[in-house]
Amino acid sequence: MPLPTLGILGGGQRGRMTALAAAPLAIPVRILCDRETGTGRALADVTVADWTAPDVLRTWAAPCDVVTVESEWAPADRLLEAAPGTVVQPGVDALVTIRHKGRQRRALAAAGVPQPDLVLAQTLDEAREAVGRFGAAVLKRFEGSYDGYGNATVRSAGDVDAAWDTLAADDGLLVESFVDFEAEAAVTVARTPDGDAVVYPAVRSEHRDHRLHAAVVPAGFSEATEHEARRVALATIAALDVTGVATVEMFVTRSGRVLVNEVAPRPHNTAHLTLDAHHTSQFENHVRAVLGLPLGDPGLRVPAACMVNVLGTRDGTASPDLSVALSPAGASLHLYAKDDVRPSRKMGHVTVTAGDVESARQRAESAASVIRL
Amino acid sequence: MPLPTLGILGGGQRGRMTALAAAPLAIPVRILCDRETGTGRALADVTVADWTAPDVLRTWAAPCDVVTVESEWAPADRLLEAAPGTVVQPGVDALVTIRHKGRQRRALAAAGVPQPDLVLAQTLDEAREAVGRFGAAVLKRFEGSYDGYGNATVRSAGDVDAAWDTLAADDGLLVESFVDFEAEAAVTVARTPDGDAVVYPAVRSEHRDHRLHAAVVPAGFSEATEHEARRVALATIAALDVTGVATVEMFVTRSGRVLVNEVAPRPHNTAHLTLDAHHTSQFENHVRAVLGLPLGDPGLRVPAACMVNVLGTRDGTASPDLSVALSPAGASLHLYAKDDVRPSRKMGHVTVTAGDVESARQRAESAASVIRL
Repeated sequence: MPLPTLGILGGGQRGRMTALAAAPLAIPVRILCDRETGTGRALADVTVADWTAPDVLRTWAAPCDVVTVESEWAPADRLLEAAPGTVVQPGVDALVTIRHKGRQRRALAAAGVPQPDLVLAQTLDEAREAVGRFGAAVLKRFEGSYDGYGNATVRSAGDVDAAWDTLAADDGLLVESFVDFEAEAAVTVARTPDGDAVVYPAVRSEHRDHRLHAAVVPAGFSEATEHEARRVALATIAALDVTGVATVEMFVTRSGRVLVNEVAPRPHNTAHLTLDAHHTSQFENHVRAVLGLPLGDPGLRVPAACMVNVLGTRDGTASPDLSVALSPAGASLHLYAKDDVRPSRKMGHVTVTAGDVESARQRAESAASVIRL
Repeated sequence: MPLPTLGILGGGQRGRMTALAAAPLAIPVRILCDRETGTGRALADVTVADWTAPDVLRTWAAPCDVVTVESEWAPADRLLEAAPGTVVQPGVDALVTIRHKGRQRRALAAAGVPQPDLVLAQTLDEAREAVGRFGAAVLKRFEGSYDGYGNATVRSAGDVDAAWDTLAADDGLLVESFVDFEAEAAVTVARTPDGDAVVYPAVRSEHRDHRLHAAVVPAGFSEATEHEARRVALATIAALDVTGVATVEMFVTRSGRVLVNEVAPRPHNTAHLTLDAHHTSQFENHVRAVLGLPLGDPGLRVPAACMVNVLGTRDGTASPDLSVALSPAGASLHLYAKDDVRPSRKMGHVTVTAGDVESARQRAESAASVIRL
């Protein structure tokens, strides 16, 4: 039985860490991306080319047994048009549904998955009406809203007009009731094309400036909330028929409800700590899942862990000083080998495992704070 | 500060796992080996060429800030002759001393490191005399004895003649008193060119047919034995002035003494479990140490772990069936991506981390037993 070849559409850190996870399984990886970033160099057979061009896609995909994506925005649909026989996991239908928050939210509602109150507003009037009813609300672009981009928080119907102009597409935008959450949870699921699934323990995530800053596990929720978060994540992934690894970000409300916030049909920043803290990392389980292999144990192998992101602080060529970055003891450093640094660009992360969440958190923050890229 | 480039002389699994450990630190790796094995492919910039040829060595080493070796037998001395300015870690003096068991044993004796009773026999008569005195003894080639190769166990002076013919070199051979050990211990040390060092907890190792079968940690020795094993390992590495990662294999006698058996100036099979069980793996600490970077925490991040080797069982092209190999839950599989399989060739290993040594051992044995390569 020859080993399967895995293709990855995407030139970022998630593709890089997926290729690294494929290495101990001896699985060869081919990456296609549309510009040189440095991240995949020397870890995979990397092609840098116009990844919307049919001949590029066809030639690149030919040796791949399975192709996966680094993000729902990768041109998986173009690939299927160019090379219809290609096996793409997750499926293009799931990706296309998730890309458009209107379609995504409708599919989740149909499956009874709990979400914030929301309206798919087709007109400015509908948006104004919804905001008037919700009080505070978040307006989101149907496509391309993430990490604070393409979103606007409004407090009254009068604030809607300006946001509508920048965010609304021909089919309108999404109006979500503002959730005054107590905590943010993220649950990662790995699911094979046959529907086998494993669920990672919930992670408690903390955002700063709309970007993930830190993730800790165990999340410290009540047993009922932990159980509900896992149930909602599994229901979400099944409703959208996602294969591979996917993460569901959720609000935990003050009354203990769990509401879906975002769905990512791919390895996710909140689960990077699985590299150091869990029996099988999200990246290895992504490789296993998309290839239809037996899934690995998603359980913790340590009592607690904390991951803190390392963001760029300037514009230019990245040149980490490892004698400084590696000085904090007991911290696992993961750099993404990006050639260029930009302010707030994700350049790497640090994970600390420990006997309890508080020490892990303190040491991870402290380790991340010494790294300047 | 640009990232340093690391060169590795060697095309096996240790170079492969070192390159994999360099990846999260964004450190580029160049490998030179004398035949294509498959192990380094797509993880490093691999050159397959005659690695004793001066021009090959010069060209390959030019972009390397530091060059390390996968084994003490790699042509580091040839490299220094061809390109005298190259920084080689561990230093060639240490490698040359370790390669020859006579020189190695003399250096350890001079430093007061405890070893089995031994004689560097220059003549057959001297060898006979030593065996007569020791009773049972192990005769070892001065160069090229490992994993049961180049060794012979003899019970009386009359057995010496046949072994002498096959094992003795111009300068004779090593006669070691046979140690009726209670256990075998291995301690790995990482040491920088400045002499900074960290010591991993002792591993209890188990050999079958003279090859490592399993390694478990914690070793379960008394506190005094654990302490003595670490002290002896550090003293050994300092006496030989080894930089990078090195492992000292030791006998623990029934009377509780710790005696040096073998010294490996490189990452070692008994410490492969550090990839899954420790804060910083031996491979990452090897990268850090040879580059003079701050060393990582050698402590366990889990209560216990067991590694079991996966050996080849036939001759031919390797074709692992991952749907079988990945079926045991909670086991971390590490395949070395070797193109060819041979009986007893090290093809990979499995590590299980757990709450106690017994469960780790049981599950690792069971996981390794289902893998057929």
